[in-house]
Amino acid sequence: MNIRFGICGLGFAGSVLMAPAMKDHPDAVIAAACDPNEDVRTRFGAEYGIPVYATLAEMIQGTQLDAVYVASPHQFHSEQVVEASRHGLHVIVEKPLTLNLQDAERMIEAVDKAGVHLVVGTSRSHDPVIKTMRNIIRSGEVGRVAMVNCFNYTDFLYRPRRPEELDTGKGGGIIYNQLPHQIDCVKAITDKKVVAVRAMTGRLDPQRPTEGNCAALLTLEDGVCATVVYSGYDHFDSDEMHFWIAEGGRAKSAGHGNARKVLRELKDGSEAELRRARYGFGGPISKAMSQGNTGRKQPHFGVMLATCERADLRASADGVLVYGDQGVTEVPAQAGPGPYGQGDTIDELHDAITGKAPALRDARWGRDTVKACLAILESSRTGEQVKLQDI
Amino acid sequence: MNIRFGICGLGFAGSVLMAPAMKDHPDAVIAAACDPNEDVRTRFGAEYGIPVYATLAEMIQGTQLDAVYVASPHQFHSEQVVEASRHGLHVIVEKPLTLNLQDAERMIEAVDKAGVHLVVGTSRSHDPVIKTMRNIIRSGEVGRVAMVNCFNYTDFLYRPRRPEELDTGKGGGIIYNQLPHQIDCVKAITDKKVVAVRAMTGRLDPQRPTEGNCAALLTLEDGVCATVVYSGYDHFDSDEMHFWIAEGGRAKSAGHGNARKVLRELKDGSEAELRRARYGFGGPISKAMSQGNTGRKQPHFGVMLATCERADLRASADGVLVYGDQGVTEVPAQAGPGPYGQGDTIDELHDAITGKAPALRDARWGRDTVKACLAILESSRTGEQVKLQDI
Repeated sequence: MNIRFGICGLGFAGSVLMAPAMKDHPDAVIAAACDPNEDVRTRFGAEYGIPVYATLAEMIQGTQLDAVYVASPHQFHSEQVVEASRHGLHVIVEKPLTLNLQDAERMIEAVDKAGVHLVVGTSRSHDPVIKTMRNIIRSGEVGRVAMVNCFNYTDFLYRPRRPEELDTGKGGGIIYNQLPHQIDCVKAITDKKVVAVRAMTGRLDPQRPTEGNCAALLTLEDGVCATVVYSGYDHFDSDEMHFWIAEGGRAKSAGHGNARKVLRELKDGSEAELRRARYGFGGPISKAMSQGNTGRKQPHFGVMLATCERADLRASADGVLVYGDQGVTEVPAQAGPGPYGQGDTIDELHDAITGKAPALRDARWGRDTVKACLAILESSRTGEQVKLQDI
Repeated sequence: MNIRFGICGLGFAGSVLMAPAMKDHPDAVIAAACDPNEDVRTRFGAEYGIPVYATLAEMIQGTQLDAVYVASPHQFHSEQVVEASRHGLHVIVEKPLTLNLQDAERMIEAVDKAGVHLVVGTSRSHDPVIKTMRNIIRSGEVGRVAMVNCFNYTDFLYRPRRPEELDTGKGGGIIYNQLPHQIDCVKAITDKKVVAVRAMTGRLDPQRPTEGNCAALLTLEDGVCATVVYSGYDHFDSDEMHFWIAEGGRAKSAGHGNARKVLRELKDGSEAELRRARYGFGGPISKAMSQGNTGRKQPHFGVMLATCERADLRASADGVLVYGDQGVTEVPAQAGPGPYGQGDTIDELHDAITGKAPALRDARWGRDTVKACLAILESSRTGEQVKLQDI
């Protein structure tokens, strides 16, 4: 079957990252889109030849859909997921699922009651390299997984931002926006739930007053553990330890401090404009994403190393390096039919709808990831380990 | 002044690592040595042209010394440090200081009472790259240190071993023998004490029944944190992320699985012999160490990354990479006059004796590192964070 999608929210995730993947995916169709911004929705509708609307309600009313992709700002996710599922529509909802547990429970209840499928994504856990690590471990060939070490050093905090993106209370900062990638990768690789968190977060730049770095020890089920380290301060770039491949899978060259430089040289008040120009529909990243997988290595989220009884697994540029008892081999990434990551997210919903496999990253998965993020913030505040059952 | 050293214990640390450094150091003289093994002490005495003895008591009695370097197996450290200090001799004692806190307190009391100086080492925290990171942070030029990320993946568990080296109860395994390097590096870089630990350790090979991997989140004073990851299972080799420079500073090439292969092909019972042949006095490593710093890059202990307010610092092959607001620069390692690491350990004792600077890695420092190791084991056992004040 072809899933007829309505895209709700034509920001970076909706119009730049996901739309080209939906267009290229053999099992998906972009049937409509909605966004309160008239300019972007008009241009988007013309580009994709689809009807566009100002609101989700109008879109559901105006076009026959199978599913909605909710890619609006975080604070609207809950209400829009509930609305879509009340109309019997399946949902892909951008990570994080939401920012608080009351909303998460409402969403779980809504999709359960409606009997629709929900997938949280795209997170970097949808990348083919992560699926491949997961499948190698699930096959049993490298024995039990014991420890995951993941770290990512980026320029996240110095990419041009809207003010709310630098306000943790409004869902800004790395804890809600970057850690979910790592947490979801750890959960996907190990096939275990997070049960406790000890973490410390930092706010190192008063001009960007939200969490920009974090170190966490995650306790997972069955004695598995993971360290998660993140820094978004545009200093060290961990892609130096990942073959100089950028997160999205394109070759990159060293550009330490460039993101800070661009901001330093900006005139006052133009950061939001710069954000729109760079990350908006039709901008340079939008054009790159429209190339699909052409010229692309595997996307990734920093360095990702899993220690198992009989091998260490490491996400690589083309797949997974297996450092085993006898030496190193490389397993090619197990990619789906669409563009990496976003395409795999569509696969997950398609598999759920067609009964091939239940969604891994369902609403409860998303709630548990939000819990882990809240636990990171609480552990950092209290100095204590936080058990997720107490959140 | 020249420090006249007696070396107590002619195993790997004493005869292979330290002796050539003492010989080359402008402020040190090897005046005598002792070891219960007659063969090794006779060969060592002939090589260095010094008197040798079977016991520490005989050495102290027979040769006039300023200091003793205690490099015997861990369980003898306490008794021998007490004995040396009772005779008014300064001490360098190999890490770990000892295996339990009662012994550590006895050693502190003994050196305090005797008014002698004690340095715990050589640990990798004595390496010039660590001193350089520490000095950059202490200078204030990169702002406050917030987070240290260190990891090391080696073949530690598959190097040929004596049986007790694979028995945690007898001081074997990575927690007592490898983690102290990382903990001491973190303490030295940040200039902070460890106050709490959450850690998980693993025993992944029933044939080598001691801890071989560990992930820990260390809480340090003043809100500083560190992640410490170690695996000694001869799978991934983190020197791949450190310019393919070996721990000791020599260029290396990939040899994944080689250590396991050598053990697999050994005849029964010959592992201890292989250990002696490879790590013993006069063996291949002994010959390499005798070259001092010739042809040597900077020694290191895996990857070591410190996130500060205005830069990330990373130990490199030649010094410290400073990833700052404006891009990357490299600061050359601040090396002392002797061979890297071991030479710096001698410098530390020399500075303390001559009143230039108190020893950083004194007996209390060593006790606190032992506490952190015990806290790692306890945290892994209980699943809880352990505060060092409760150890």
